Amino acid sequence: MQNASEQYEDHSSRSVTKARFRSIVEGLDSGSLHQATYTLNNGLAPGDIAHLLESSPPKQRLILWELLDDDLEGEVLSYLSDDIRSEFLRDMDAEAVLSIAEDFETDDFADLLQQLPEALIAEVLESMDTQDRVRIEEVLAFPEDSAGGLMTTDMITVRPDISVEVVLRYLRKHKAIPASTDNLLVVNRRDQFVGVLPISTLLVSNLNATVREIMQTDVDQIPPTMSENDVANLFERQDLISAPVVADSGRLLGRITIDDVVDVIRERANHEILSRAGLDEDEDMLAPFFKTAKSRAVWLGINLITAFLASAVIGMFEGTIDKVVALAVLMPIVASMGGIAGSQALTLVIRGMATGKVSRGNISWLTNREFLVGLFNGCIWALVVATAAIVWFEDLQLGAVIGAALIINMAVAGLAGTILPMVLQSMKIDPALAGGVILTTITDVVGFLSFLGLATIVYGF
Amino acid sequence: MQNASEQYEDHSSRSVTKARFRSIVEGLDSGSLHQATYTLNNGLAPGDIAHLLESSPPKQRLILWELLDDDLEGEVLSYLSDDIRSEFLRDMDAEAVLSIAEDFETDDFADLLQQLPEALIAEVLESMDTQDRVRIEEVLAFPEDSAGGLMTTDMITVRPDISVEVVLRYLRKHKAIPASTDNLLVVNRRDQFVGVLPISTLLVSNLNATVREIMQTDVDQIPPTMSENDVANLFERQDLISAPVVADSGRLLGRITIDDVVDVIRERANHEILSRAGLDEDEDMLAPFFKTAKSRAVWLGINLITAFLASAVIGMFEGTIDKVVALAVLMPIVASMGGIAGSQALTLVIRGMATGKVSRGNISWLTNREFLVGLFNGCIWALVVATAAIVWFEDLQLGAVIGAALIINMAVAGLAGTILPMVLQSMKIDPALAGGVILTTITDVVGFLSFLGLATIVYGF
Repeated sequence: MQNASEQYEDHSSRSVTKARFRSIVEGLDSGSLHQATYTLNNGLAPGDIAHLLESSPPKQRLILWELLDDDLEGEVLSYLSDDIRSEFLRDMDAEAVLSIAEDFETDDFADLLQQLPEALIAEVLESMDTQDRVRIEEVLAFPEDSAGGLMTTDMITVRPDISVEVVLRYLRKHKAIPASTDNLLVVNRRDQFVGVLPISTLLVSNLNATVREIMQTDVDQIPPTMSENDVANLFERQDLISAPVVADSGRLLGRITIDDVVDVIRERANHEILSRAGLDEDEDMLAPFFKTAKSRAVWLGINLITAFLASAVIGMFEGTIDKVVALAVLMPIVASMGGIAGSQALTLVIRGMATGKVSRGNISWLTNREFLVGLFNGCIWALVVATAAIVWFEDLQLGAVIGAALIINMAVAGLAGTILPMVLQSMKIDPALAGGVILTTITDVVGFLSFLGLATIVYGF
Repeated sequence: MQNASEQYEDHSSRSVTKARFRSIVEGLDSGSLHQATYTLNNGLAPGDIAHLLESSPPKQRLILWELLDDDLEGEVLSYLSDDIRSEFLRDMDAEAVLSIAEDFETDDFADLLQQLPEALIAEVLESMDTQDRVRIEEVLAFPEDSAGGLMTTDMITVRPDISVEVVLRYLRKHKAIPASTDNLLVVNRRDQFVGVLPISTLLVSNLNATVREIMQTDVDQIPPTMSENDVANLFERQDLISAPVVADSGRLLGRITIDDVVDVIRERANHEILSRAGLDEDEDMLAPFFKTAKSRAVWLGINLITAFLASAVIGMFEGTIDKVVALAVLMPIVASMGGIAGSQALTLVIRGMATGKVSRGNISWLTNREFLVGLFNGCIWALVVATAAIVWFEDLQLGAVIGAALIINMAVAGLAGTILPMVLQSMKIDPALAGGVILTTITDVVGFLSFLGLATIVYGF
């Protein structure tokens, strides 16, 4: 990412998909629906159609959905994000839901079911055949954000004692092999996980070799209770394409595939980026005006409380400001520099916690470093700001006061920014969502309090 | 992500890898290096060792590197992030670099080479055998952040006219199949790309079928100039595991695999999250104190200029504040609410641009909505804040002034937050890095200017 500014550029002028997006949108605009309908239904992968729907404003989106062939709906739904999918699910009955079930992998269908009303879920499950129902219920038994909720039960298992030739013959009996199958899973007679047989090994092995001889047994088994975030970190570290989910008893429950892990990684990034601004990662980016306005208002309200708190602190020193107006002019500098310094530490630690790089093992080293960095930079910039203040207002005391306040606020900011995410996590509060607001409150209050408080003492009011 | 606060929790108490991490760190602390060395070299995957190095403070990291077996170094290096890798590369000569080359895929080795001094790159390339050198130079010819720089030339190609049986026999002649091979690539006699043959199709096909009969031709071909961000979006939308990179001439150049795309997605998220706070995504999270302090200082300096600008605006109204001190107490509210409203729009648009959901096609719809949302929420919260101000300071005019200023600032914030990222992008400035600072400058200046300016007019100074 050496040239980060380029990452938003469009280098893919040759991309067939993008050209088709454009022709569909132009078709809608110009009213030539016939051509648009044809391109939509015949020229795009289901994931691309989902992307087109997600990047269309509400009215256009509804028209596109109407133009979409019925037999594509299921697959397109499987690619849509929760918020937009529930728009389209709203008017489906049990029969309609069942008719799209075959387009989904077990884990994705379980996710979809959880978006439906309780009564409808029961109705759908009752209408399924026993085998399918059992598989869905197995996934539904685990929280959506755990390995169990992420796994699919679509997989191919083999016994350790058969030969490569038999395995190849067995595979040829299948009509299709589940997507993202890089490994066959080896189980014993009691369905307990024994190892994996990579397809890449299978293809280069002697036809007479047995599965037992060529399988891999040194594999990280994922317990169904592992958090999806830990699953994602495991896949990232080991470059996995799929991994087995194994119960405490050793029974093979299913497997997790890279496509779902990519979704987790993207959702985690969305969550971390959007939460910082109080936005919901599940919410449709192109939601209609009123829905957006409502959801934004809440966050603004929470921040207003913070702002009033800062005002209350300033209000305590009205008398001081009345005598030295320069304080009012300079006070935003103290608060703002503390906010920036704190937010650097906070952002680093939250990101580190999400990627598993910050943990109990190194947090005290990190806290220490961040405190010293805050203190050090506080001193550096205190010198600059103090000099500027003295020159601007020709007031030595003012320089001393703002310098001291900056040092205090920035050291506190470094400390608070590092400790806060760990504290919030241990209180089960999401640091990405609450961290920024709380930190700003701290740096505002400490900033105004130290600056105006010191001024009150120094000027002797 | 329904229960986002859980995402940072550690559910993997059963994880063998984590237990081994802990035992190694405890071994270092207690000085029992023998056990730690054994676990490090025999109990962990190379990606896990890299993760352990990355989450260790500087001193511990050096000790771990010393304890690592020489023959593991190459593979571990291939998993390390740029900043940390160059630490260890610093004292390697051409011979040492060559000795680890075989642990790398072509694209990864090309990346590594680019971290070395020019003279050393030339020396390494000269010492390689011709075939390897040509492959590396092919990748080096493209920018690191393009599809060409991301591709590997490790792949298996077949001709369209041979039968499944011949393909299977041909594969069995290989010692190993390149990682992430879900497709064989079908090329004609002139090495031009014809289609892909999924391994999953190969395995279930009749032995007598020809490649031509069973191959897929409806495949998105990636031009080598496509940006890595567009590549990532394509993989996400189509759930790909690998995709062919094809030159304008139709010649197959290589393929891109999901493990590298996952790295791009993670780096993009890192970039977007860390840049907002002025942090460098390539920088080691656990860098020593002085290195960190230096890199942070720059960002604080840039923000200081912003803060001084805000102060200058306030300074223009010193006379007004001198007469109505309540203005100094309330003014942070106007700036802060504008900052929050603007940052919501900004965050949404930057994320949307990175994921390809915001583009020229919908930006005007979005700008319109964000302006209206800013205006609407401005009106709502103006009522609340005006009422509070009137009650607090018993001053009707003050209420009217702060209400009007809030409406102005929040509407401008919505507009600026949406337009700014597009403007910055067209100027080739990274919106994730510069957007926040510029936006804050706008909302601070507009906030203070409208509030204090209106007050000066209303109070008639």
